[in-house]
This record gives sequence, structure tokens and C-alpha cells, in this order.
Amino acid sequence: MTLNLGVIGVGMIGQDHIRRLTTVLAGSAVSAVSDVDTARARQVADGLPAARAFATGDDLIADDSVDAVVVTSWGPTHEEYVLASLAAGKHVFCEKPLATTQEACLRIMDAEVAGGRQLVQVGFMRRYDASYRALKATVDSGQLGAPLLMHATHRNASVPGHYTKDMAIVDTAVHDVDVARWLFGEEIIATQVLVPRRSSRGGELQDPLLVVFEMAGGALVDVEVSVNIDYGYDIRGEISCETGTVALAEPNSVIVKRQGTFSGRVPADWRERFLRAYDVELQEWVDSVGSDGALLGPSVWDGYAAQAVCDAGLQALHGGGRVPVHLREKPAFYEK
Amino acid sequence: MTLNLGVIGVGMIGQDHIRRLTTVLAGSAVSAVSDVDTARARQVADGLPAARAFATGDDLIADDSVDAVVVTSWGPTHEEYVLASLAAGKHVFCEKPLATTQEACLRIMDAEVAGGRQLVQVGFMRRYDASYRALKATVDSGQLGAPLLMHATHRNASVPGHYTKDMAIVDTAVHDVDVARWLFGEEIIATQVLVPRRSSRGGELQDPLLVVFEMAGGALVDVEVSVNIDYGYDIRGEISCETGTVALAEPNSVIVKRQGTFSGRVPADWRERFLRAYDVELQEWVDSVGSDGALLGPSVWDGYAAQAVCDAGLQALHGGGRVPVHLREKPAFYEK
Amino acid sequence: MTLNLGVIGVGMIGQDHIRRLTTVLAGSAVSAVSDVDTARARQVADGLPAARAFATGDDLIADDSVDAVVVTSWGPTHEEYVLASLAAGKHVFCEKPLATTQEACLRIMDAEVAGGRQLVQVGFMRRYDASYRALKATVDSGQLGAPLLMHATHRNASVPGHYTKDMAIVDTAVHDVDVARWLFGEEIIATQVLVPRRSSRGGELQDPLLVVFEMAGGALVDVEVSVNIDYGYDIRGEISCETGTVALAEPNSVIVKRQGTFSGRVPADWRERFLRAYDVELQEWVDSVGSDGALLGPSVWDGYAAQAVCDAGLQALHGGGRVPVHLREKPAFYEK
Amino acid sequence: MTLNLGVIGVGMIGQDHIRRLTTVLAGSAVSAVSDVDTARARQVADGLPAARAFATGDDLIADDSVDAVVVTSWGPTHEEYVLASLAAGKHVFCEKPLATTQEACLRIMDAEVAGGRQLVQVGFMRRYDASYRALKATVDSGQLGAPLLMHATHRNASVPGHYTKDMAIVDTAVHDVDVARWLFGEEIIATQVLVPRRSSRGGELQDPLLVVFEMAGGALVDVEVSVNIDYGYDIRGEISCETGTVALAEPNSVIVKRQGTFSGRVPADWRERFLRAYDVELQEWVDSVGSDGALLGPSVWDGYAAQAVCDAGLQALHGGGRVPVHLREKPAFYEK
Repeated sequence: MTLNLGVIGVGMIGQDHIRRLTTVLAGSAVSAVSDVDTARARQVADGLPAARAFATGDDLIADDSVDAVVVTSWGPTHEEYVLASLAAGKHVFCEKPLATTQEACLRIMDAEVAGGRQLVQVGFMRRYDASYRALKATVDSGQLGAPLLMHATHRNASVPGHYTKDMAIVDTAVHDVDVARWLFGEEIIATQVLVPRRSSRGGELQDPLLVVFEMAGGALVDVEVSVNIDYGYDIRGEISCETGTVALAEPNSVIVKRQGTFSGRVPADWRERFLRAYDVELQEWVDSVGSDGALLGPSVWDGYAAQAVCDAGLQALHGGGRVPVHLREKPAFYEK
Repeated sequence: MTLNLGVIGVGMIGQDHIRRLTTVLAGSAVSAVSDVDTARARQVADGLPAARAFATGDDLIADDSVDAVVVTSWGPTHEEYVLASLAAGKHVFCEKPLATTQEACLRIMDAEVAGGRQLVQVGFMRRYDASYRALKATVDSGQLGAPLLMHATHRNASVPGHYTKDMAIVDTAVHDVDVARWLFGEEIIATQVLVPRRSSRGGELQDPLLVVFEMAGGALVDVEVSVNIDYGYDIRGEISCETGTVALAEPNSVIVKRQGTFSGRVPADWRERFLRAYDVELQEWVDSVGSDGALLGPSVWDGYAAQAVCDAGLQALHGGGRVPVHLREKPAFYEK
Repeated sequence: MTLNLGVIGVGMIGQDHIRRLTTVLAGSAVSAVSDVDTARARQVADGLPAARAFATGDDLIADDSVDAVVVTSWGPTHEEYVLASLAAGKHVFCEKPLATTQEACLRIMDAEVAGGRQLVQVGFMRRYDASYRALKATVDSGQLGAPLLMHATHRNASVPGHYTKDMAIVDTAVHDVDVARWLFGEEIIATQVLVPRRSSRGGELQDPLLVVFEMAGGALVDVEVSVNIDYGYDIRGEISCETGTVALAEPNSVIVKRQGTFSGRVPADWRERFLRAYDVELQEWVDSVGSDGALLGPSVWDGYAAQAVCDAGLQALHGGGRVPVHLREKPAFYEK
Repeated sequence: MTLNLGVIGVGMIGQDHIRRLTTVLAGSAVSAVSDVDTARARQVADGLPAARAFATGDDLIADDSVDAVVVTSWGPTHEEYVLASLAAGKHVFCEKPLATTQEACLRIMDAEVAGGRQLVQVGFMRRYDASYRALKATVDSGQLGAPLLMHATHRNASVPGHYTKDMAIVDTAVHDVDVARWLFGEEIIATQVLVPRRSSRGGELQDPLLVVFEMAGGALVDVEVSVNIDYGYDIRGEISCETGTVALAEPNSVIVKRQGTFSGRVPADWRERFLRAYDVELQEWVDSVGSDGALLGPSVWDGYAAQAVCDAGLQALHGGGRVPVHLREKPAFYEK
């Protein structure tokens, strides 16, 4: 009954998923780990009830004791481990990004389609957040008419020193890419990046940005990406439809009145804001894999499309103007 | 067309009403003032375009140039000036309280009824606040069924050093007495005062209190009276009905996000919170007096009933238990 | 590593806990069930991967395969099963009430103290709700000064036909009893029940009620108990302290604007409102029992004190007035 | 003391201002009216205490009884009446637009500068709204660092049948033009108009639009203009600064809970939303004109700049892309 998982990459996010899979969720155990830092892999394995450390991710994938694979290693290694999992015929949950280039995403897609069975899920956790789900359910109910515009903000209190200009698109806005595609049930066909006055808090970094997505059906999505805004991690979204709007509510638990104000808490970071979304994401994946294996979450197609939009976004960021997104024809395999 | 008013008592509230009547509202002028401090009266008159200072309130009332009277003097003098205005057949707006004893209120009532015409309005300004009016309109619409309970708070950041135990009832809770009677359209028939742990901020003062009113129809109204709560002036009210509730919203104009919170402003004091209510109150009174003279605001009956409830409240505060409110039979004169 | 649980009573709440323990939480399995309806017990067992149905709760408790016990049977049977669990030296999670009389609670207390080890936890789930925890954390931080008053509402959209007058206290307000004791860290020393106008929606039922608790330190807690209010399940709480207040926020995920209003959802019932609190409650219990066995949740003392307050509340409901709560001296055993 | 005003144009907005000037505000009277429909002018004059109807606006302006002029006639006539008022050396309050072309605005500017005294105020009422003022005060306080982005919505429930594509810019977004300039204290140097999927509710009309303004200091302002959104009139604005944000709060007075939701009111239209802003706007103008005549409100420069931005906006709407705004050098006359 218990799904034995092998986790490749035991850095911060890997260890957090291991904690989740072993002490929060039902139905899974972590039986294998690996890491480029083999000493760290051994240390993590020692802290688990019954896990072995493998020398490489490929060894881990090949081992019979591993029912399914979780990839939380460094982005550029994702392709290799996902392909190996597919070759082994094992389900694999791959943290975003699916791969770091469109070409790599397409190689994974070819392999999965050739295998005839959907085995890969990509880690876009916002789809599992209760507020985003209510947002989508409200739009899908049709009670507000067709959605025409979406306004979003993606704000971080701060980012680490190694954060680069491109990461605002490929690391940060990529989440907004995925939710826009998912909320509207349509592809993004073009993007542009407007560049406002630069915050003095981010040094040389171009921060904030105003990113605009053009959906296949004509709707527009604008996203403020601010990564040094100090006050907290603030993820907002409002969809403006023909007869009404729906917006994410403030995710706050108590209102305090003191010193002349009433106030509520803004989450400090993504861990606080999306703690439960990660739980639900992995629980649903474990449940799917453990039962009929029919995956409901973000697919290889979603990972590929996100990458293609980010590539267009980077071009827009560097060159300006409206940049169309070119996608391969969608294999019927990915229609649900 | 312009209504010439005489203002008796030009302390803080008197001067504020003069400012309002001369520079904010339409249709009135202040042509006469008086004060126990005659120098102050003269000074105020000098600052107005065309006003005379009178030696006494009675002189002011008697003067032909005065169309109607505003009484903003010390509470114990209200009876005298209201009775004199009635004797002169002039409209009079009297700040709360109408008088400081039930007996005085009844003498005024007898005089007004004998005169055959309603000339007195009492200054309970909350009835003119847009939020309270929306509260009442929602209840009166019947969409929520009958009102069964009301929960209220009456919080002051601080009170002056001369504030006494009894003032929590007669100066503070008296406003809640009036709005409860007005919102429910019923008399208060009994009251009790529950005494919680004392705030260390109020010295010897018994603060806060939990005051409970029993309405004629059986509904209960509980009011937290806190007069040293530091964070601001917070007037709240929620009416719980058979199928729903309605509550005063936060009277706030912008939401600020900084340093980990979203926040809005709590009013500093009653001037900030009820600024517009006072404007509307006096404008409606000026409009009524200047046209047909049919008063719509709180009457002598309302001033008397508030006094009677406060007397019962004081008895409850000092003696404990449930104290019934005894009212004279209501003259048909006061049915609208 | 997996904790094997026996569940006594597989009605609605029992089956919900089984679902939770087997498909939501980590570290537990349900290996045994029993029910007064033995056919139902067998049916539930058949639906689980590896569970046996026992003829009686006592058989279940005695079986070696059962590591710990969950009691979700009819209230009057709780005492027997908790005592049997104590006799067997097994941890037992007992849904509220611990027992239906103070005397029964005391018999359990005597047994547990005699056994020398805390083995019983009582199911008051609100302590595990994120908003209530933030409420308590804010008060405990001391940033608002001492808590003086609490205002609460406990509103149900409707109740079943068999709901009686007394259930407003022992089934409904009992949750408010527990949270008041927990939030203030003090016993309730007296209670009174004020009876407002009756809702026409509840037939003969006296609904709503205004229940007042007097805390040992002098603070007062007022609770509106409305059980037929139609619009939803609305649990609210605000604590008024010396320099500020803290209140539960609306537990809502999106704001919809349509047809002239902005609006958010009110939970339909306790299942929706406290879904996660039940999850957290049982996960923390499983974690405690599975590790050192040091329980952090509501104890036998808490179950007993709640019962004693409810008894006083019933007396106040039927006889009126302020009814003191008499408690046994608290055994040092229950000091944490 | 009373300022005698002549009102040119007594259609809906003209009559509303007359009501305001005669029954709401202090210090003014309407002594003269005119209208292209002379019968209507006579009828309005008859309804006032002491007003004369003039055959033409020019006659009205010339009359000695008129201290100052209010222009609320059809837009294309504004230039003539404002110039005539300047020629007569009289203060004039001109409803937006100042004039319908940049050239006309410049002719007015030349005339005013030549006259050596600021006599014209333009009717952009949002600057007088309490929420907008709090928004500006918060930004200006510097507590949030420099403003970098503003997100706004300008939503109307519906528009009349004669509403055209261009009116979305010159009638609707023009208010957002003025508030952006005022809030940031900078000119708009370029604009673009993004065109989302069209609402099926507006027939052939291109609705909604996403208008983007580029401020002189680099900040960007995006404005959703939706004029058929059914649910109400919803004016929103949030300014994203370096360390925090500030946003207009919902202008709502009570929260109602019923039928599964909590809800508040969205204003029905601009009259409801900006009722008080119009009052404050005209009161402050009357006070200025009646005292030293130093105007604080939107000037001819502001009216001209708004027109220039709208012209660029129209070009962007029809031709696409980023359209720069070209302004004359600002006369020192307009520096405050």
C-alpha cells in the first residue's frame, strides 16, 4: 500500500519534500535518496527510518525498491533524471522547471509519448492552492461571463545576491505563466515586458517588471513582478470578466487592532504562503500514482509550454516589444 | 432665506458647531452668541462676519434677530435655555443631554406639549452617520428577518483625568442607548452592567464595562464600553437577525502594506469618526427649521428616554443586577 | 513505525476520522473497528486495507494488535471505553464529551492519576485551528496588554429536529467553554445565560442565547449561540485587551464582485470550517503517541472542567442568574 | 460674504452643481443661469430663490451681479465661455474637459498667462475624494519609498448607447490621466493601449481596454477601462512603491451576512462614488475665490496636459504601439 519513493537531490526543497512525504502525508515512504553531495545524501538517509543513499540518481532510478521518483535536484540535471525515469517506466514528480531549454522539454515529450503512458508530473504548486482553486472554480462556473483580463502581482520581500535579471522571468514569473494557462484553459500566444522605474533596493537588478501575457482567446494578463519589495511575499490575482470579477482574498488568520491601525499579516515567503499547496500537490500525486496512475497535475506539455513562454519573455525583456510564443502542435496524448 | 442662529455656549463643541454652521453648511448664519465667559463670547462674535455677543443666554433667546437657538453650554444649564426657547416659541437644537435629570426632561416635555408644537431637537449625531443609516435601512428592509441581538463596542483611546465612573454611562454609553432605541424602534425596558477585570491603564476607574440593554420586544443589546484602550476610537455594531446579520464596516480609506502587514486606519477620536454625521445632523435641522419646521431628529421624548435608561444604568453599575427602566406613558404628541 | 489504531464507533464522525487517519495523515493505520451496529463495523472494516471488526469496544481495546484507541461512539458510552483503555494502559483519543456527567469525568480522572501516566486526550479541535492559534499567540505575546473581554459568536445555519434546549449548552457552547479556558489560561468560575427574543425559525427552541463566562482572573467572555441563523456557520471571536484587540479573520479564499456587491463565502458547516483543525489535531496526537507519548492536547482535566461549566450553564439556562462553577482541586498531575 | 455665481449650462451636471451650491455648501448663491435651451434656463431660474436667466453665456458672464462663473455646458463650448470669463477678469470653474482640443487649451493658457492672474479651475473631482487624498498623502510621506508602479481600474456598470470607442479615452480614462499626474507629481510622457478580448455586452464597442501611462520619472501606470461590467462602478488604485504599497479601500458602509456570503456594496455609479468629492471640490473653490482667490485645484495647465495625453491615447488606441506625449514648456506661471 505504501508508495516507496526515491528522491534525487536533497537540498532545501528536497529535504522539505522528504519531511512532507514522511511526516505529513499518507501513503508514501522515502526509501532512497541521492545527491551530487554524496555525504549529504548519506546523512539524510540516516535520518530516515528505512532509506538508502545511492551514489547517483541513475542508480536510484534503476533500483527495484523505488516505486516512483521525485526530482528536486539542480534544474540543468532534470532532463537526465526524467528521461531515465521514463526509460525505467517509473512515475516521476519533477520540480519546476521540467528542463531548462525547450529542446530538452521536447526530448522528454518525445520519450513520454513514445512510451505511450503519462508518467511525468511537473511541480507547479499554485494549482493546488485552495484560493487559486476557488478562483478557477468561480470563473469556470460561468456566473461572471467570459474572462477578459487578469491582474496579478508576484512580490517577494527580497531575493538572494545571486538572483539575476533573467530569473525574474524563468524563476519567478514562470509560476504566473503556469497559472495563467491553467486558469484560462488556453495557451499564451505572446508576451511583452514593460520596464518601470527601478527600485533602489535591488542594486543593478531591473526590478520591478510589468509582464503582459496575451492568451489564445484574446484575454490579457498583466503581472507585476517585484522581488525586493521588503514588506512580504504577496501573491495576488484578479480576473475581470464580462459581468463581474473574482480575486484572491488576503490569506490572513487574525486582525489585530493596535496603535491606530487594524492589521493582518502578509506572508513572509513562499514557504508560508504555499505550505499547504505543496502538501496537497504531493498527496494528490501519491494518491494518483498509488491507485490507477492517472495523473491530473501539470504535464510535460505544461512544462514545455511554460519554458516556451519564458523564452519569449526573456526575448521581450532584452529586446522589447511583443514577442510571439511558438509552440509545437500539441500531441493528442496530452488532451484530457 | 438664511436662518439666523444664536449659539449659547462657545466652548469646544460650540465653536465647532459655529464653524460648521458658517463655513460648511448651507442656509444658516450665526448672528448671536453667548457664554458664561462673556469675554470668550465677545471674542467668538468678533471672529464672525455679523454676530453679536449677548450677556446671557436668555437675552440671546429673546432677541428678535435670532431665528432659532443652538444650546452647546454646560449640561446642567440645558434645561433653562431649552425652556426659555420654548417660551419664546423658537426652535432649539440642544446638544446631548437634553437635561441632566429625568425630572428636568419631563418639565421640558410638559412645556413643549403644552405649546402644541415640536420645537426641540436633541443632538444624538450617530443617527446621521452614513454607516448607521445603512445598518438601520438593512434591518428595516426585512431581508434578514427580525433583529434578535446586537453586539456593540464603544471604545475610546483615552479619557481626560476628570472622567468619572458614572460618565461611562451618562457620557459614553448614552450614545449606545440612543442608537439601540432608534435602530430597533423600541424602548429599552431594562439594563444591567457586567464588570470585567479592570484595565491597568485607567487607574482607579472601572474600565471596561459590559452593558446589556433589554429591548421592549425582547432583543438584547450588549455594549463593550472601554475608555482607555489606547489604539483608537472604535465604534462597532452588529445586529444578529433571524437569517443573517449586518454590521458597521471599518470606516477606512486606504490599505497600506508594509513591514509584514496590511493595515488600515482606526479613527483617533469621535471628531474624526463622526465629522460628517455632525454636518448632516445640523444641515438637516437647518433645512427643517428653515422650511416647514417638521423635525425628524431626536425629540424631547428621545432625550428623556435616554436619561431614564442612563439612570437605570447607573443603578445597575452601582448596585448590580437587572434594573428595569420606568418611563412615563408616551404622549401621542411624539408619535410620528 | 506505523501506529495501529482501533476505532470504536463508526458513525459519521468515526468514519470521517478513519478517512483522515488512513488517507490524509502520516504514520497511522486503522487496524480495528467496532460499533454497536456490528454489520456497519464489518462493512467499514471491509473497506479498509487491513482492519478487523470486533464485536465490542472492550474486545477491540484488549486486542494486542491495537496500539491506541479512538473513541467516536455515542457520548454516554465514552466513560466505559476510556476507562477500559486506561486499564489496558493504552493511549485513547476520545471525542468530546469526555463523559456526560462530572462524576464520570472524575472517575476517569481518578483512574488516570492512579495509573501514573497521561493517556487520554479529549477532542476539542478548535485549539488546532490556525486562526485560533494565531489569536492565542497574539494575546500571549503581551503586545496588547492583559485580555479583559472576549466577544464570540457560535452560529449554525440550522440544527436537526432532535436538537434540544440543553444541547445549545452541552453540544454547542461547550466548544466556547474550552476555547475560553485555553485562550485565557484560566478556569471559568461562573456563568450566566441571557435569553433574547426567540427566532421564529427554531420552533419552540429557545434560540439564540447570550452566554456569559466569568474567568478566574476577572475577564468576561460573551458568546452568542445561534443555531438556526440560515446564512452559514459563523465562528467569531475577538479579545479586547488593555491596549488593543485581536479577532479571528474571515476564513475566505476569494472575493467575488457581481450584481452590486463584493462578497466572500461563509462556511456552510463545521466540517468545512474546521476540516484542517481535525487533521492537525489527529496528526499531532498520532505523532505524540508514536514518539514519547507526551500529550499536548486537551486532557481529562479539560474534559472535566468543560463538563462542570456546562452543568452550571444548564442551571443558568433553566433558573437564570449567575451560577458559580465548582471544580475539584486540580491534581498536580495535570500541570504542564 | 456670499459669492454670487452664474452657471452656464443647466443639464444634469449643471443642475446637480446648482443643488450643491445652493443647498449643500456654505458661502455661495446662484444668481444667474443660462443654457442653449433658454426655456430650461428660465425654468431652473424660477426654482431658485433669486436667480435670473440670461439669453447667452456671454451675457451672463458680462453681468455685474455675477461674481464668478461655473461652466457646465457642452464640452465644445467650454473654450468660448472660459475665454470670456478671463476677458471679464472673473474666476471660472470649468467642468472637464477644459476644451476639446490641445489648441483650444493653449489659447486659454495664453489668455490666462497674459492676464497675469490664475482665474480658471478645471473640474477633476477625484483629487477631492478622501480616499485619493489619503493615497497621495501616504505616498508623499515617503514611508514606502519611491512609487514605481500603479495599478488602477475604472469600471462602469454600463454606458449609454451613444458612447463611442474614443470616449473610453477622452471621457473615461481622462480621470485616470489626471490622478496619475497628480499622485506622482509628474507628467505622463508616453502612453499605450492594449486591447484585450472584447466583452460581448458592449456590442461593437472595444471594451475593455488596458491603458498604460509612462510617467516622466519612469513609473508605469496601468488602468483597466471597462465600461459595461454590469456589477457596478468600481474605481480602484494601488501604488506599488519600493518597500510597500497603498491602495484605495472599498468605499462601503456595512457588511451583510446572508445566504452563505458576507458582502458589501459596490457603488452604482460615479454620482454615488464621488458625491462628496464634488461637494469638497466646489466648497474649496468657493472658499478660495471668496477669500484671496488663490486657487489650489486643477489648473489650465492640468486641463491642457490631460488633453495632450488623451490625444496620444487616441493615437495609441487607433494605431497601436507606444505614443509619446508632447507638451509645451510649462510656463512658470503654473508652478506652485
